[in-house]
Amino acid sequence: MSDAVRLIEVREEIHADNARAAQMLRERLAEKKTFLLNLMSAPGSGKTSTILRTIDALRNRFRFGVLEADIDSTVDAERIAAHGISAVQLRTGGFCHLDASMVAQGLDALDLDALDVVIVENVGNLVCPAEFDTGAVRSAMILSVPEGDDKPLKYPLMFTVTDALLVNKIDYLALSDFDGAALRARVLKLNPRIQIFDISAKTGQGVPDWSAWLSREVSQFLTGVAVRPEGP
Amino acid sequence: MSDAVRLIEVREEIHADNARAAQMLRERLAEKKTFLLNLMSAPGSGKTSTILRTIDALRNRFRFGVLEADIDSTVDAERIAAHGISAVQLRTGGFCHLDASMVAQGLDALDLDALDVVIVENVGNLVCPAEFDTGAVRSAMILSVPEGDDKPLKYPLMFTVTDALLVNKIDYLALSDFDGAALRARVLKLNPRIQIFDISAKTGQGVPDWSAWLSREVSQFLTGVAVRPEGP
Repeated sequence: MSDAVRLIEVREEIHADNARAAQMLRERLAEKKTFLLNLMSAPGSGKTSTILRTIDALRNRFRFGVLEADIDSTVDAERIAAHGISAVQLRTGGFCHLDASMVAQGLDALDLDALDVVIVENVGNLVCPAEFDTGAVRSAMILSVPEGDDKPLKYPLMFTVTDALLVNKIDYLALSDFDGAALRARVLKLNPRIQIFDISAKTGQGVPDWSAWLSREVSQFLTGVAVRPEGP
Repeated sequence: MSDAVRLIEVREEIHADNARAAQMLRERLAEKKTFLLNLMSAPGSGKTSTILRTIDALRNRFRFGVLEADIDSTVDAERIAAHGISAVQLRTGGFCHLDASMVAQGLDALDLDALDVVIVENVGNLVCPAEFDTGAVRSAMILSVPEGDDKPLKYPLMFTVTDALLVNKIDYLALSDFDGAALRARVLKLNPRIQIFDISAKTGQGVPDWSAWLSREVSQFLTGVAVRPEGP
């Protein structure tokens, strides 16, 4: 593990009131003026690559930090730190989600006064992370093209609770029978207010539109406008 | 939902002794001479397509049934039933894994005397299913090329507990920087006895080798040879 990465073994608070912990965390973030984005997806959808692309697009405007969650390993945090970005690895030791107290433990290891935006890369999982409010200001999820357009039918909660959907790996579309219109209809039925962006974290395609939306959300938050709880 | 699909809402037995339930299920399967395969993967790796390919390759030799697990929806079981195969949908209502008692509930809905092999499609998840012995005779997992070759570093338990690894969607290799040799080294370090097969459930490539291995395992089981608990 490189010296640039801090590793924290997080523990779930037994019987903790997560909704209350999330609200306390949101108040702390509002006071610190730090925007927290909760990024969720299945394993291998391209969360880390998307984070790097997003920060590249916006690092002239905002100061970024990253919390990386994983059952095990520190590979993602090392990849982020290699780009000169403050990164903390949260090792969940078997838990398949992050809750607000775990995120708060991770934020303790960052200097929030020096950061405008912290992106939390949640555990790769389409089930459990959807059930826990992390205290984030906004949430986004990634669905990659090879995973298929039927996922909203099978994991409806994730698509329902997220503010933005990034359809990643659109560079695979040519080889795939992925039906973008069918996906969009299924998602909008669950969540009419969701923002949908087609991107390729590999080529950078579509990243400007997504980054522009995120930039607007962060700016509104930092100027105290339109702060509302995570979720549409 | 089509008439061909039975839907069962499964419940976890609180404080159940899963190891004991799994052992009891294995004894029941040995008595019934029904081979149970537990198939695991992340969402969208191609479990249902792989099941259909596998059954197509072996349906002249064995009589197949399928248990489909999902948080919600019956789309997978309907896809299987459309091919004239007995299918039961287990709806886990939020649980991100199957345990042995859930599988036993699903098997109650199948006529085991008329089946040689039941394939259980576990919940799409690389974390929780690895932690629960389902009572299966053998287990297999799918990793699809677009998910990346780093997954054994991040989800080591899944790769450690499974008997066979199917590297699916090799038709995407041309567009990908997936390093098959690196994957193989990482997997074998965790699990030296694992069987690895490169396949494309879309084109059928590699399916004969995988099916030949499975056929051999089933034949040995049916003739009472080399029955051992799931896991290497």
